Amino acid sequence: MASPVESRRPELRKDSVTNRWVIFSPARAKRPSDFKSKSPAPSSTDSPQTCPFCIGQEHHCAPEIFRFPPQNPDWKVRVIQNLYPALSRDKDLDSSTSLSSGSLLWGCLLDGYGFHDVIIESPVHSVHLSDLTPEDVAQVLFAYKKRILQLASDDSIKYVQVFKNHGASAGASMTHPHSQMVGLPVIPPSVTTRLDSMKQYFNETGKCSICHVPTKDLLVDESVHFISVVPYAASFPFELWIVPRDHVSHFHELDQEKAVDLGGLLKVTLIKMSLQLNKPPFNFMIHTSPLQASDSDLAYSHWFFQIVPHLSGVGGFELGTGCYINPVFPEDAAKVMREVNIS
Amino acid sequence: MASPVESRRPELRKDSVTNRWVIFSPARAKRPSDFKSKSPAPSSTDSPQTCPFCIGQEHHCAPEIFRFPPQNPDWKVRVIQNLYPALSRDKDLDSSTSLSSGSLLWGCLLDGYGFHDVIIESPVHSVHLSDLTPEDVAQVLFAYKKRILQLASDDSIKYVQVFKNHGASAGASMTHPHSQMVGLPVIPPSVTTRLDSMKQYFNETGKCSICHVPTKDLLVDESVHFISVVPYAASFPFELWIVPRDHVSHFHELDQEKAVDLGGLLKVTLIKMSLQLNKPPFNFMIHTSPLQASDSDLAYSHWFFQIVPHLSGVGGFELGTGCYINPVFPEDAAKVMREVNIS
Ligand SMILES: Nc1ncnc2c1ncn2[C@@H]1O[C@H](COP(=O)(O)OP(=O)(O)O[C@H]2O[C@H](CO)[C@@H](O)[C@H](O)[C@H]2O)[C@@H](O)[C@H]1O
Ligand SMILES: Nc1ncnc2c1ncn2[C@@H]1O[C@H](COP(=O)(O)OP(=O)(O)O[C@H]2O[C@H](CO)[C@@H](O)[C@H](O)[C@H]2O)[C@@H](O)[C@H]1O
Repeated sequence: MASPVESRRPELRKDSVTNRWVIFSPARAKRPSDFKSKSPAPSSTDSPQTCPFCIGQEHHCAPEIFRFPPQNPDWKVRVIQNLYPALSRDKDLDSSTSLSSGSLLWGCLLDGYGFHDVIIESPVHSVHLSDLTPEDVAQVLFAYKKRILQLASDDSIKYVQVFKNHGASAGASMTHPHSQMVGLPVIPPSVTTRLDSMKQYFNETGKCSICHVPTKDLLVDESVHFISVVPYAASFPFELWIVPRDHVSHFHELDQEKAVDLGGLLKVTLIKMSLQLNKPPFNFMIHTSPLQASDSDLAYSHWFFQIVPHLSGVGGFELGTGCYINPVFPEDAAKVMREVNIS
Repeated sequence: MASPVESRRPELRKDSVTNRWVIFSPARAKRPSDFKSKSPAPSSTDSPQTCPFCIGQEHHCAPEIFRFPPQNPDWKVRVIQNLYPALSRDKDLDSSTSLSSGSLLWGCLLDGYGFHDVIIESPVHSVHLSDLTPEDVAQVLFAYKKRILQLASDDSIKYVQVFKNHGASAGASMTHPHSQMVGLPVIPPSVTTRLDSMKQYFNETGKCSICHVPTKDLLVDESVHFISVVPYAASFPFELWIVPRDHVSHFHELDQEKAVDLGGLLKVTLIKMSLQLNKPPFNFMIHTSPLQASDSDLAYSHWFFQIVPHLSGVGGFELGTGCYINPVFPEDAAKVMREVNIS
């Protein structure tokens, strides 16, 4: 079994200008890549014989955390440690940094304690999330839930980010269907911004902004417990959100019935995106609430899924301003996505 | 002469969840691209005969704003309108949106008034910024300055973002050396965050954070009026800042002597990056102060240049959290960059 790569301990730093946490993680530089250079989304012809995520290749992976079904060699989903983790799962006993004390006063520095796991979504290299049954997608969602609950028992972990990279230009270095999860010792800046904004809306209107997400021109699909919409101010062309109808703050409150329902809608959404946008590289992110959110915060925080196809890169304008340029109006994207025929 | 592309008026929207301004600009979808798919930085072998930015092809461009030297067919720098602008330079008289009023209450919406220009940095397709003399780089910087001063006379314009995309994976659609400038009717979110952070440091320490930028382990190069450093919490491997030694809030205060000095340091920095990192795609951004900044804001705001080589893409973690993972510690990057031999 491959053992986690040794290198200098990760650090989290924030400076007094951008005020943004950055994880410094030299171990990450060593990870392998299925991609030589930027290229379109992977096809199922990528050679599976060298893929450590394929069934039968478990010994090439970092240690397993759990699998579904448990103890079964014929697994459907595996959650494993990331072999090149951004954070270190060992608590630091003797903290040291190479920075001089003058620099330290200028910014913030935290030891890089945390968890970075990989969720292998299918045993077979070429079987993607959208190929699975709604029940099998639900198993992947349940693997996220189970692992989040494990991380929640560690008081040092403040937030868990679940995300998926599919295709090289969406950042993926591995083609085998997988997603990732990072348990962070801080609440990240976008989460703070999102929650502050939702709190402001709640204070002004008495309503949860996600319960009242605009659907008039923006609805794409509906299931029993979820809806999919193009967001009102989508940052990216054809960005989609999947939103629970009920007011629920944490993703990990998902039950079996809702997981299957969500699995079905997620599958339909990915298939539509693939058909309409010619198998684009994409990311998805689960936006949930901090693990230790207070009761008063739960009133305005409501989890949702964000799916972003990569149709064009971002440039210096977005890097500089944090403001995005989207050439497609959300109501136009929603109309197109509503009309995709997947039968 | 090509005339600006007709399409639905741009809009700026901000929702009550992400609280982030997005520019919806259908005209942008129509712009041409020198790149078929994601590929490495352009080489000088790209066919210049079809490039509208080349000398002699001025009639294929959107209208010129000015050139250096003025009225000279043998120009060195041209500032032109962007043919596919993100914002509209006409004030809207009869504002209309296709959104229903319910949706409008949920977010913010602004008419997309503003300016989007292109700065052609050299008349010759294959002559890049780093090939120019410090004096010629200074002319490009002076073109930025002159255009910012023109935009500053319009009270509706709050902030000007100058940026450069070089290479496809840095977002560039055109290979001819150019940069861009957007005059915005709002102060963008990253600027607000940056200024809030610098203000906090000032309130706590009585000092400008950029005047006191850490250099101990992080300095790369120095000129008479500027220094280059790897920032304390660089978001990207080998990210560099060029910082004026004197406390100056606005880039457009640059005088002739400092422009040539900066031109020299910028040239050296780009050459070092190209040598050390194998001609990477890159972006640069000028971080300045809002046009109408108050006197009290000027005390803590200090402009600087940010240069970001594109060595790896970002993925769902960064999109979801706004937190970056950088595999290279800043002090290590600074050491490497200090030691690059450009003679
Ligand atoms: N004949 C002509 N006359 C005048 N102007 C012409 C022209 N032909 C083309 N142009 C303009 O020239 C510009 C060239 O700009 P870049 O190559 O730096 O990237 P672009 O703006 O396309 O997009 C990148 O940068 C933006 C902003 O960061 C991102 O939104 C985007 O995703 C990324 O690909 C384009 O904006 C284009 O509209
Ligand atoms: N044998 C093995 N056992 C266990 N784990 C293994 C392994 N071999 C590889 N791995 C891990 O598997 C993961 C695969 O992840 P992805 O393909 O989604 O993108 P990656 O994390 O490389 O980077 C993308 O996503 C991150 C986060 O968004 C961005 O920082 C980055 O720029 C972008 O390229 C890697 O993190 C790698 O460390």
